[in-house]
Amino acid sequence: MEAPAILKETALTIRVGCEIAYEFGGPTPAVFLVRPDASPRQRLISETWTTLPGAPYHDYTDLFGNTCRRMLLPQGPVTFRYDALVETPPEPEPVDWNAAQHLVQDLPDDVLVYTLPSRYCLSDELAPRAMELFGTAPLGRGCVQTICDWVHDNITFCADASTPLTTAAHVLASGQGVCRDYAHLAITFCRAMNIPARYVFGYIPDIDVPPPLTPMDFCAWFEAFLGGQWWTFDPRNNQTRKGRVRIAIGRDALDVAMVTTYGAAQLNRMTVWADEVPNGGTPAR
Amino acid sequence: MEAPAILKETALTIRVGCEIAYEFGGPTPAVFLVRPDASPRQRLISETWTTLPGAPYHDYTDLFGNTCRRMLLPQGPVTFRYDALVETPPEPEPVDWNAAQHLVQDLPDDVLVYTLPSRYCLSDELAPRAMELFGTAPLGRGCVQTICDWVHDNITFCADASTPLTTAAHVLASGQGVCRDYAHLAITFCRAMNIPARYVFGYIPDIDVPPPLTPMDFCAWFEAFLGGQWWTFDPRNNQTRKGRVRIAIGRDALDVAMVTTYGAAQLNRMTVWADEVPNGGTPAR
Amino acid sequence: MEAPAILKETALTIRVGCEIAYEFGGPTPAVFLVRPDASPRQRLISETWTTLPGAPYHDYTDLFGNTCRRMLLPQGPVTFRYDALVETPPEPEPVDWNAAQHLVQDLPDDVLVYTLPSRYCLSDELAPRAMELFGTAPLGRGCVQTICDWVHDNITFCADASTPLTTAAHVLASGQGVCRDYAHLAITFCRAMNIPARYVFGYIPDIDVPPPLTPMDFCAWFEAFLGGQWWTFDPRNNQTRKGRVRIAIGRDALDVAMVTTYGAAQLNRMTVWADEVPNGGTPAR
Amino acid sequence: MEAPAILKETALTIRVGCEIAYEFGGPTPAVFLVRPDASPRQRLISETWTTLPGAPYHDYTDLFGNTCRRMLLPQGPVTFRYDALVETPPEPEPVDWNAAQHLVQDLPDDVLVYTLPSRYCLSDELAPRAMELFGTAPLGRGCVQTICDWVHDNITFCADASTPLTTAAHVLASGQGVCRDYAHLAITFCRAMNIPARYVFGYIPDIDVPPPLTPMDFCAWFEAFLGGQWWTFDPRNNQTRKGRVRIAIGRDALDVAMVTTYGAAQLNRMTVWADEVPNGGTPAR
Repeated sequence: MEAPAILKETALTIRVGCEIAYEFGGPTPAVFLVRPDASPRQRLISETWTTLPGAPYHDYTDLFGNTCRRMLLPQGPVTFRYDALVETPPEPEPVDWNAAQHLVQDLPDDVLVYTLPSRYCLSDELAPRAMELFGTAPLGRGCVQTICDWVHDNITFCADASTPLTTAAHVLASGQGVCRDYAHLAITFCRAMNIPARYVFGYIPDIDVPPPLTPMDFCAWFEAFLGGQWWTFDPRNNQTRKGRVRIAIGRDALDVAMVTTYGAAQLNRMTVWADEVPNGGTPAR
Repeated sequence: MEAPAILKETALTIRVGCEIAYEFGGPTPAVFLVRPDASPRQRLISETWTTLPGAPYHDYTDLFGNTCRRMLLPQGPVTFRYDALVETPPEPEPVDWNAAQHLVQDLPDDVLVYTLPSRYCLSDELAPRAMELFGTAPLGRGCVQTICDWVHDNITFCADASTPLTTAAHVLASGQGVCRDYAHLAITFCRAMNIPARYVFGYIPDIDVPPPLTPMDFCAWFEAFLGGQWWTFDPRNNQTRKGRVRIAIGRDALDVAMVTTYGAAQLNRMTVWADEVPNGGTPAR
Repeated sequence: MEAPAILKETALTIRVGCEIAYEFGGPTPAVFLVRPDASPRQRLISETWTTLPGAPYHDYTDLFGNTCRRMLLPQGPVTFRYDALVETPPEPEPVDWNAAQHLVQDLPDDVLVYTLPSRYCLSDELAPRAMELFGTAPLGRGCVQTICDWVHDNITFCADASTPLTTAAHVLASGQGVCRDYAHLAITFCRAMNIPARYVFGYIPDIDVPPPLTPMDFCAWFEAFLGGQWWTFDPRNNQTRKGRVRIAIGRDALDVAMVTTYGAAQLNRMTVWADEVPNGGTPAR
Repeated sequence: MEAPAILKETALTIRVGCEIAYEFGGPTPAVFLVRPDASPRQRLISETWTTLPGAPYHDYTDLFGNTCRRMLLPQGPVTFRYDALVETPPEPEPVDWNAAQHLVQDLPDDVLVYTLPSRYCLSDELAPRAMELFGTAPLGRGCVQTICDWVHDNITFCADASTPLTTAAHVLASGQGVCRDYAHLAITFCRAMNIPARYVFGYIPDIDVPPPLTPMDFCAWFEAFLGGQWWTFDPRNNQTRKGRVRIAIGRDALDVAMVTTYGAAQLNRMTVWADEVPNGGTPAR
């Protein structure tokens, strides 16, 4: 998959970031995944990391290639803040209706892991249901779109529906979920149909769409491997979007938690932003 | 962790391998994990791979560092066979009763993933039960041994207890399982106590122990990270063993399936061997 | 770059391998790179590794992704033998005359290292000469082909020309070399022109060409990165070839020595083979 | 190798960074290696990256595990600035006079590459000289220290001695060099004696030593693998130092250029800093 150059002249500039306020009972190890990744559809222009009070950190690359920031946060109140400017192409992610499904034997080695079940995407358990629903769907892009349509139409958005233990099987049973649940269920169905699918987590600004009723948050969607490359699908919105900014990829939400803290942590406040910046300027925040 | 040299003069020679007979309805992609890995406690002397009829293959390294053989098996009856001679040290795996538990902030980056829940090891879900059972256990080696003792004593071996959907939570609830279930439950408890634990899969010969009632099979055990290195634990046998041969490591059994086939496969016969070879010779097989 | 499937019906079957006889003054660590790699243009059907007397080994993956076999060979006479059957497509490697040159900023991250000088390919030192010779050549495929033509026409094959210290600068100065020297000089010129180029090492059977005067040996050629993928070039033969089998890639010959031994070794005999096997059968050897 | 915790109470705080002013004739791809790495002997507290005018960038990990920042710098004058606070232990790097030399067969796989010659460290070419000078030195730590002493005593520091083409062989012949040349020559001798050695590049503040006559710059030293871990050696200074901050590792200076630019670049000014910050405060700069 070759990346098209993002031209300065036409690029959208998106401001993304988050601020999280904690109260810790003791020194607390934490891992943050908040930074736009090196996807060819986006490029960083500037970023600022702030922790108050200051805390030691280093970055490392996890199994899936994501850059994680590992910190040791001090006891007491701690505010973590990440703020960045990112350029993206002016148009939404591309769609190729003819992107073909691969035979499993033709998949690249590093894609194979995304055909297997994972913590939240129990494609083994849901295989019979997937065959029932999508066994007669067209192969390739058509199958993935049919899955997205089904998930979009049959799951009701419900902000409280999901806990850290909610699997795709629960989502299917309850018919409710948040964006990560939509993604988990669609991924599960894709894998059950032998289409590699991976979980994606990032920022989405509301450009040329009405702002959602629920305040902005980190979002989850997924990618399917068709015709030799990964394609973006978003069963929650079920539409292409401008200015999508990817943070990390994994098998499911377990692999790409935004924040992992060890030990007791009290989360007092969390704000996330993803806004278009007209003329590449820097709005006050 | 430094590997002690395995001396030719005192090494045990173990013959390991397997033969699997299938009937496939069509060309079938498959991934095999049957080869002893590059653990410093073992070294390959010779090996033979045979597939009848012949089939194309290549090797690749998965996310966890395991070398997988990927094949495209033909339609009809197929026999796959792997046979190897391996040297191991003459004594069982070492035990250090003083191996200390790390603070999470002191764990190496690549160990961190083994503190998280995974498909079969739902350490988030079982955390309350782990705290209840092991919250007052000593830290470090003592905690892991207490966990192994508990799992060994409270789970009953039952060859039919486990399906591809059986998690550690099911094992705890039913009180029954096979070696992989023992490993999953102990790993889950370790992670819930913030001790990194990973699943191991391999061959174990019966040296200086009575042969088991159930015929020999691939075995599962686990490793815990203490005092700066990984240590072997085996809650099924709950004893150290000579001649243990590691094949692969992962977060749980999902990551290290011995064989993954895509599509309908009929398994007709499977034999596994792991035998000491006196004087390093080659017994007829 | 998507790999075309190699069809059983039309594939060429190539037998490749080598036999090397040594005499060692003591236990000798060695690393072998003799196995066809996982290139999508070839697939292994069977292989046999033999060492007489037997010796412990394991495989590992080097920095460049090559699978190396690491052995500890015993004192005295040792014979090492590798023999394999490989399938390749029936036609020579593809040529795209329009494959475009990338701007450096558009190269994938993992390709960037192949724009830099290396032990034998001193592209910094030869940059002025490259500009002089190829500064007016067309960009992209045309430039690489112009370089290959120049190297092919200006270097004389000479079996004794090369030592382990011979760099591309020496080759240019002397006007003589073996296949690896041709590859080194062409790689050096490509890098000096900001075209990523990497060294390749493998087997080439003589199919539809007259057998060479010099007996068959391991061969070296190179790959250039153009239009989003790596393309094969062979300045020694300066023609496409059927049945080419890749063993390893690297920055230059230093990274992909066929055999590396540590300590004093006496090489008594070495034979290499790469022959088409009609009808996929197995000729006596 | 286990990392000792760096305690907040006793840590040294070091301010490191650089500012570089360029004039570019066109858009210029560049790769920067200026950030302290994840070595267990140091930890980042804060950092600021500034490019004027702004320019897109992303980070990637190179073959040696270093995190590189890849940028596309605009035409015209460009100022790049990196500034960070780092904590290090209060004592100099440790020394173990008994650290033993490994047999090559006992070296970890990923260390093996550091036994081979590289672009500037032609250990094959200098092997006879190394044997002559150090063939009777003690093994292990003693051998490396003997090499460092010899290089320190026999090479004269000369700020102008080195060009991008200067290898260890040139350094030995001329008897002159800068810190990277000292490191290259010592590395070359170590490898010739079968001791793995790798190039290190970083910042060194002048703590408890007289400031050097030459203004502060990025520094080079090296690490040797003995007794199961990497140890720091500095043949230029030939003394242990407090507050050493590692940026990157590689086979030699080629692998870890501080800045790589493609195309014509005019460097107008470059400043580097590495200063202890009393009480962890932030001095004006």
